[in-house]
Amino acid sequence: MNHQDFNGLPAHVWPRNAARDASGVVSIAGLALPDLAAEFGTPLMIIDEDDFRSRCRDMAEAYGAPRRVHYASKAFLTSTIARWVNEEGLSLDVASFNELTIALRAGFPAERITVHGNNKSREFLRSCVTHQVGHVVLDNSGELDLLNEVARELGKTQRVMVRVKPGVEAHTNELIATAHEDQKFGFSLADGAAFAAVQAAVEAENLELVGLHVHIGSQIFDMPGFQLASQRVLGLYERIHTELGVDLPELDLGGGYGIAYTADQRALDVKTLAHGMLREVEDLAKELDIPVPEVFVEPGRAIAGPTTVTLYTVGAVKTIKISETATRRYIAVDGGMSDNIRPALYEAEYDGRVVNRLCDGEYVDSRVVGAHCESGDILVNEAEYPDDITPGDLFATPATGAYCYAMSSNYNMFTKPAVVSVKDGKATLMLRRETVDDLLRLEV
Amino acid sequence: MNHQDFNGLPAHVWPRNAARDASGVVSIAGLALPDLAAEFGTPLMIIDEDDFRSRCRDMAEAYGAPRRVHYASKAFLTSTIARWVNEEGLSLDVASFNELTIALRAGFPAERITVHGNNKSREFLRSCVTHQVGHVVLDNSGELDLLNEVARELGKTQRVMVRVKPGVEAHTNELIATAHEDQKFGFSLADGAAFAAVQAAVEAENLELVGLHVHIGSQIFDMPGFQLASQRVLGLYERIHTELGVDLPELDLGGGYGIAYTADQRALDVKTLAHGMLREVEDLAKELDIPVPEVFVEPGRAIAGPTTVTLYTVGAVKTIKISETATRRYIAVDGGMSDNIRPALYEAEYDGRVVNRLCDGEYVDSRVVGAHCESGDILVNEAEYPDDITPGDLFATPATGAYCYAMSSNYNMFTKPAVVSVKDGKATLMLRRETVDDLLRLEV
Repeated sequence: MNHQDFNGLPAHVWPRNAARDASGVVSIAGLALPDLAAEFGTPLMIIDEDDFRSRCRDMAEAYGAPRRVHYASKAFLTSTIARWVNEEGLSLDVASFNELTIALRAGFPAERITVHGNNKSREFLRSCVTHQVGHVVLDNSGELDLLNEVARELGKTQRVMVRVKPGVEAHTNELIATAHEDQKFGFSLADGAAFAAVQAAVEAENLELVGLHVHIGSQIFDMPGFQLASQRVLGLYERIHTELGVDLPELDLGGGYGIAYTADQRALDVKTLAHGMLREVEDLAKELDIPVPEVFVEPGRAIAGPTTVTLYTVGAVKTIKISETATRRYIAVDGGMSDNIRPALYEAEYDGRVVNRLCDGEYVDSRVVGAHCESGDILVNEAEYPDDITPGDLFATPATGAYCYAMSSNYNMFTKPAVVSVKDGKATLMLRRETVDDLLRLEV
Repeated sequence: MNHQDFNGLPAHVWPRNAARDASGVVSIAGLALPDLAAEFGTPLMIIDEDDFRSRCRDMAEAYGAPRRVHYASKAFLTSTIARWVNEEGLSLDVASFNELTIALRAGFPAERITVHGNNKSREFLRSCVTHQVGHVVLDNSGELDLLNEVARELGKTQRVMVRVKPGVEAHTNELIATAHEDQKFGFSLADGAAFAAVQAAVEAENLELVGLHVHIGSQIFDMPGFQLASQRVLGLYERIHTELGVDLPELDLGGGYGIAYTADQRALDVKTLAHGMLREVEDLAKELDIPVPEVFVEPGRAIAGPTTVTLYTVGAVKTIKISETATRRYIAVDGGMSDNIRPALYEAEYDGRVVNRLCDGEYVDSRVVGAHCESGDILVNEAEYPDDITPGDLFATPATGAYCYAMSSNYNMFTKPAVVSVKDGKATLMLRRETVDDLLRLEV
């Protein structure tokens, strides 16, 4: 690493419209981050709207039609995000009753909503049928019966998928191909539960089974997991074709497309991945002599993740002797595990940059920590950063668009950061900063 | 384990006023949990007020005076909790500007508040001095200078402690006695930074140094860590006595007292622990021929943790084949990692009970999971539970009073649970349940 590296903004990690000018100030979509900090305060999340939309379009193009791409709202959902996704023509995945409610309130068309969840209540299922959502993904047999009953009560038919546990787990670069039955989601392919569920769904009078769903993990950077899952699940399509005389027209391959959080990580190219997945499904279907199902995917992180940075103000800085020969520079910022739990929860790696100026200090072992009362409150665990990062500097971590705000807490009574969207030189407050009054509003 | 075990409520894990009647219904402070579920919905947190207060009193008695016991508000803070702690005469630790603000708004006397934090802003320090909090615990040299400056501007003197990193880490049953310099809090004893900070604090005109602070970890179940930390820090008291001619009248030994989350864990008895700690400090001071400092402690978990249960409704239940010969029963409830992140974050163990009836099924490998769209959303990872736990049953996890609500999120747009306090047959809503409207209130 050299000085250029720390002052540079790796294009595959930062929002597409991020740039640093000659004076060292970083802007996104033409808005200088120091100006945004002055206007909205820190910690502040800044989302590049055009980047978000362009990733929707890239996905839509790669998979042949916008509605085949289901944005996974659990990554980050607001009414504005729902509107962007809708305007781009994508479908929407929701995983809870409240995600569904918020999407519908934001005007998202029910027919393009797919509903997930391992424990859907009767009221939740009733809402799905009442609004006639595009798909309910069935997770267990009790739910199958309950949904059929609810749909009968309402005098409707509900389109459904069956979630299949293919016995494949792809996580980052590790592929576990034979096990991973031991998790809560879906019906096992191996023990026959998936086929039994398909049979039951086909027979259920008020359900219309249109396809199967598989999801093999998250932060996946290569094809083999998707290929193996496709092979296994298409084997089930063939069995359904042969034994039940039914051809399911759709196949949902789930999400899990990895993104780069740091300069040394490389996401799979969307087009290459889509081409590979579609080709695989087509080839397999032809081999098995069954109709080729229409393929859906569910990117959340791959759309929202890279579009956003979190902007902090540097506070306390100290150098600690960590062994006889080594020191580490601790740089504390004004947020932490309340706005980004991922390093503590998943040992997720992040990187960051000073965005108000160029740094030219000597590179030293550094760690960026938050302001919470917990030693695990770390944002950047290990990095070589210039030693001239000082109190008052603005420090931004990129790739915080997914699972950061969505999993944020009020630990130590920290308030949730403000979120602004930026586009063509204009900043729009999407979510206002929480206040202490907000924290106290639930007190009776 | 036998049936009695599952239907029993281990007294060292459950709130002091929890009991199961002959029909199998569990009540706390005379309130049947099924009635509370019917009135307030689930997930619901239920806090036993008398238990909370009795733990405050036990601590106060063990350490000789209520104000020596500082309740660590990061564990769980509401205005009502602040009032209880105040009424019991305890002191209060806060670790952020907002915790301080909320405590002051709740009428907590500033002189019994101790202020922590590794990255306190100028505004935060200004508020400390303006209100003349009892202690500010200095964490780094920049802060020492800043606080002195702020106090001078305000024409006041601020009482402070210096946080010392003693090079001791006690966590659960593991004691790391020589390292653990590599974390963000405090001034190193080993490299001389702590002594230098003491010198600077003694010399600072607007600061009054009254003691040192050490904190060695969390969930500690034995004495050696406290003993070793006391030895090291009292060595520093002696150096200060000898080299600076100053006797510091106070010593804060921090928190970290372990509690039992499951039947097989045993917390240290408060009296035994207190006696051991006080004796150790007294003996060491006499050996070193210095005045015995007054000892403060900072229990959070040890007061709040065991007082509370989280009540869920069982939804989907499925049995999964996890190997050729083994199955596991998955019991899904209507909460999860949004209301209790600790299993996912720390691999924390919890246990639970059905509280609406007696169970008498066959004991089978079971796992209790939440309703979030994530396979790591687990509440009880491995347990032998009766196989007659069914949808609609009420399932409660005890020992959720600390770091559960305090770290809760809105992941998957789950709303925060309601919290009720119970006492002498009366339930009082402390925090109302969040609604979807609450979730949308930050949208602009």
